[in-house]
Amino acid sequence: MTGPEKYTVGIDFGTLSGRALVVRVSDGAELGSAEHAYRHAVITDHLPGRPDTELPPDYALQVPADYLEVLRTAVPAAVHRSGVDPSDVIGLATDFTACTMIPTRHDGTPLCELPAWRDHRHAYAKLWRHHAAQPQADRINRLAAQRGEPWLGRYGGLISSEWEFAKALEILDEDPELYAAVERWVEAADWIVWQLCGTYLRNVCTAGYKAIRQDGRYPSREFLAALDPAFADVVVDKIDQPIGRLGDRAGGLTAQAAEWTGLPVGIPVAVGNVDAHVTAAAADALDPGRLVAIMGTSTCHVVNAAVMQKVPGMCGVVDGGIVDGLWGYEAGQSGVGDIFAWFIEHCVPGRYEREAERSGRTLHEHLTALAAAQHVGQHGLIALDWHSGNRSVLVDHRLSGVMVGQTLATTCVDQYRALLEATAFGTRVIVETLQRHGVPIIELVVAGGLVKNELLMQIYADVTGLPLSCVPSAQAPALGSAIHAATAAGAYPSVREAAARMGRRRQRAFVPIPANVERYDALYAKYLALHDYFGRENTMMRELREANLNPNVGALT
Amino acid sequence: MTGPEKYTVGIDFGTLSGRALVVRVSDGAELGSAEHAYRHAVITDHLPGRPDTELPPDYALQVPADYLEVLRTAVPAAVHRSGVDPSDVIGLATDFTACTMIPTRHDGTPLCELPAWRDHRHAYAKLWRHHAAQPQADRINRLAAQRGEPWLGRYGGLISSEWEFAKALEILDEDPELYAAVERWVEAADWIVWQLCGTYLRNVCTAGYKAIRQDGRYPSREFLAALDPAFADVVVDKIDQPIGRLGDRAGGLTAQAAEWTGLPVGIPVAVGNVDAHVTAAAADALDPGRLVAIMGTSTCHVVNAAVMQKVPGMCGVVDGGIVDGLWGYEAGQSGVGDIFAWFIEHCVPGRYEREAERSGRTLHEHLTALAAAQHVGQHGLIALDWHSGNRSVLVDHRLSGVMVGQTLATTCVDQYRALLEATAFGTRVIVETLQRHGVPIIELVVAGGLVKNELLMQIYADVTGLPLSCVPSAQAPALGSAIHAATAAGAYPSVREAAARMGRRRQRAFVPIPANVERYDALYAKYLALHDYFGRENTMMRELREANLNPNVGALT
Repeated sequence: MTGPEKYTVGIDFGTLSGRALVVRVSDGAELGSAEHAYRHAVITDHLPGRPDTELPPDYALQVPADYLEVLRTAVPAAVHRSGVDPSDVIGLATDFTACTMIPTRHDGTPLCELPAWRDHRHAYAKLWRHHAAQPQADRINRLAAQRGEPWLGRYGGLISSEWEFAKALEILDEDPELYAAVERWVEAADWIVWQLCGTYLRNVCTAGYKAIRQDGRYPSREFLAALDPAFADVVVDKIDQPIGRLGDRAGGLTAQAAEWTGLPVGIPVAVGNVDAHVTAAAADALDPGRLVAIMGTSTCHVVNAAVMQKVPGMCGVVDGGIVDGLWGYEAGQSGVGDIFAWFIEHCVPGRYEREAERSGRTLHEHLTALAAAQHVGQHGLIALDWHSGNRSVLVDHRLSGVMVGQTLATTCVDQYRALLEATAFGTRVIVETLQRHGVPIIELVVAGGLVKNELLMQIYADVTGLPLSCVPSAQAPALGSAIHAATAAGAYPSVREAAARMGRRRQRAFVPIPANVERYDALYAKYLALHDYFGRENTMMRELREANLNPNVGALT
Repeated sequence: MTGPEKYTVGIDFGTLSGRALVVRVSDGAELGSAEHAYRHAVITDHLPGRPDTELPPDYALQVPADYLEVLRTAVPAAVHRSGVDPSDVIGLATDFTACTMIPTRHDGTPLCELPAWRDHRHAYAKLWRHHAAQPQADRINRLAAQRGEPWLGRYGGLISSEWEFAKALEILDEDPELYAAVERWVEAADWIVWQLCGTYLRNVCTAGYKAIRQDGRYPSREFLAALDPAFADVVVDKIDQPIGRLGDRAGGLTAQAAEWTGLPVGIPVAVGNVDAHVTAAAADALDPGRLVAIMGTSTCHVVNAAVMQKVPGMCGVVDGGIVDGLWGYEAGQSGVGDIFAWFIEHCVPGRYEREAERSGRTLHEHLTALAAAQHVGQHGLIALDWHSGNRSVLVDHRLSGVMVGQTLATTCVDQYRALLEATAFGTRVIVETLQRHGVPIIELVVAGGLVKNELLMQIYADVTGLPLSCVPSAQAPALGSAIHAATAAGAYPSVREAAARMGRRRQRAFVPIPANVERYDALYAKYLALHDYFGRENTMMRELREANLNPNVGALT
């Protein structure tokens, strides 16, 4: 690259906030960032301005206008902090949580912004972790299995309640009038790009992973009609749209979006993408066998392979779903940091809070420091990390957490460590399932907020037996987006080449300690026994959850 | 009864303190009581005055001299508070935790009081909940099963690590020199009577339940020799002693004991007894079918039947073990109040403590009030109540607690209620096991510190489906002892007649609510599934416990 330095902006739309990052195109240096928290955060109890409405359990809604605020506030702030001249910014790219869906009119206007619909709960954006469409997912799965749908095996044999069809069918079931008013059923990842450049392309990633697009086709009209005759045309009416490859230019920044962001009109805006998937580029870990785990409230795993394999319990395998030219595999753990946060909030006595305060540590840091003094197995506990359900490999949101081995001597430190370990066992299940089905895994690459917990990282290395690399960026997804922006802007011929220059990871930051590996092997065998007992051999957890959700029905029997 | 009112004193030796109660013989009125906490409480970490010694896990020792302090302090205090003239006290009786064992010289001097032995951990009293003799219990059980010992079936097929032979064999294994110096291996229940009246009789109750005395015989010399040749003569050398029936006079109060207690020299002292077993008299629940549950840190269940049945997993069945003329069955749950206390100490966030303080409630009361607002099944949890192991019906102290069904919405109130319920399910397992094997149970009679928790009592009624009676006395065991004292003094011809006049219970204080019974039936089915999975179908918990206790061995495999 010659001439003066150029820059791109990556914007990462997370669960609670959006973060903008200004990156140098020549080497990926991060020059400035800013964050903006969504005004409405995650809506779980009642619709905005309607405290009288009570949302059903498992709801998680958002307000799309909150996303636009990120463009108006975080982007200019990041550019300002970076000291970069906005005219030197040559491209912009975004990544988003997924599957987060927005019901809109034909022009992209969210239905929740229209007075006629704003009191309808199904008019709002359904965040990835909206889990109320499980009955619809169950119907989809039953029918697909009955009919032997060819795509089912590419999603591990189960479609998630988080995805596009389950969430759309939920609307049809519960609010058919609103369903009829949905002219476009839009991934937030594509909606934000639509707002930036005026072009509505479906990115190949979410079209594949979340909308069941395989070999260029969505599920058939016959299949959809068999779910519900009124659902037969959902693809042609509401979902189908031209496809954009990752790292391609979707369009040029509109005048309005330029005004919002303070960036030059017309600069390339990349095709939409997903937070987890762009992180593989940020880590320069696009080669086959490098499993990238983005560990935050939940964990998303992505890995490339040269071949297509049907792996049970994966979220999906999509051609070009992570990077063009390779098959991208996605898996996930629906609760990780969320579980630790729950524990801190609900299970730790006050004296630990006071100790943490005195030692100037957060409660997480304090418990981690105490837990780090234990050797493997000392606490005598095994936990299942399903407090938020299980995404891979069981794909069931009605599963729940378990703690086995409590004695009168068990402390909250013991239980905290057992939960850290449980999430590592959960990752190992995914790693081994991939390996067993012909997808090689040779390295664990960790990004996200939990990277800074060194005990947790060592546990993951010890439990999986893999060398563990860390992505040093605190803004890895935004960096990944900036890499895609540089590609879309033509600064590099491909995302892989851009990632090689702009991405980075600290290789072998943690290596397995043989004695720990051996002891964890034995504990993992117990985890697997519990995994199969509660996840496969009986329906106890689902029945408990039914009783929990439906107090007035005799659901316990 | 004619003439002026007469009184007896009952003394209840518990885990942490001894309580004396002065009772009117004519009607059982409780006139005064006093408590004395043992100076050394329960020794679990190091021997008295030896902070450099570290006791192994699962130890629970006591200092016998602490028991004598109760005679010197609590008895005179109770008499003083009662306003009774000591010369109107016509008898004295005691009950004790069991199996609590004291190694002594031939004259009853505890070895730990001798300079030569006081640094030996096996020289101290081994409290009932000393659980370090599990390996010895395992050997006893294996050998008894191999040889088809006829007594094994009367102990549910398993001898507990808490009992006399396991604890004695532990001494032989670990400190043979001290073992040789043990001239008498004495139940604390008998030792205290020995101190009061100078006569060493073995009470029929602990001889039967804890020393495996059946049909007048202890385990055979051949059996004991097969355990260890050096153990062959343990019965003749250290254990055998004349037997006393419950409620009989053991002897007269010695001059020294009269001086300690302030009571008349020579008044009858009853044969020793056990806290749980005397409570059946206090409740006037000696008839067959009335299961008396003494609920405190742990729960002991006793019930009479006209017939001898071999019931798996019971602690034992002993002829005259509760009252002369009936077969007394004993069962137990090794952790109940202990588990709730553990939860309060280790699992409740500070904000609940502050709320409790503001509302002037203890934390137990506060959590109970919050839990009482839930309907059955609302929390979506099932717990196993084995934090302190399982006495009946699995008889394994290496089992541990389990919590199933945690979600990110689970609160400590949910988990607290699940633990309350778990202990009720544990009681139901015992009730149903007795019923299935021909021991009728028609009523649940509850005594002990937990009676005052009304939510807990209702849960027990709903879970077991039995009418629940409460023993109103806060000092039920001491009242039971006073009843035995009255019998020993000749005021009544038998304990049953004394109990009919002096004992009492609030009948049908809680009756099952049909809707709750039905819902608990469904939850209980899940509890049973977990019970069998963890208790019978795999060894996971024992292996976790091994790893927990033995950090440096590869015990996990």
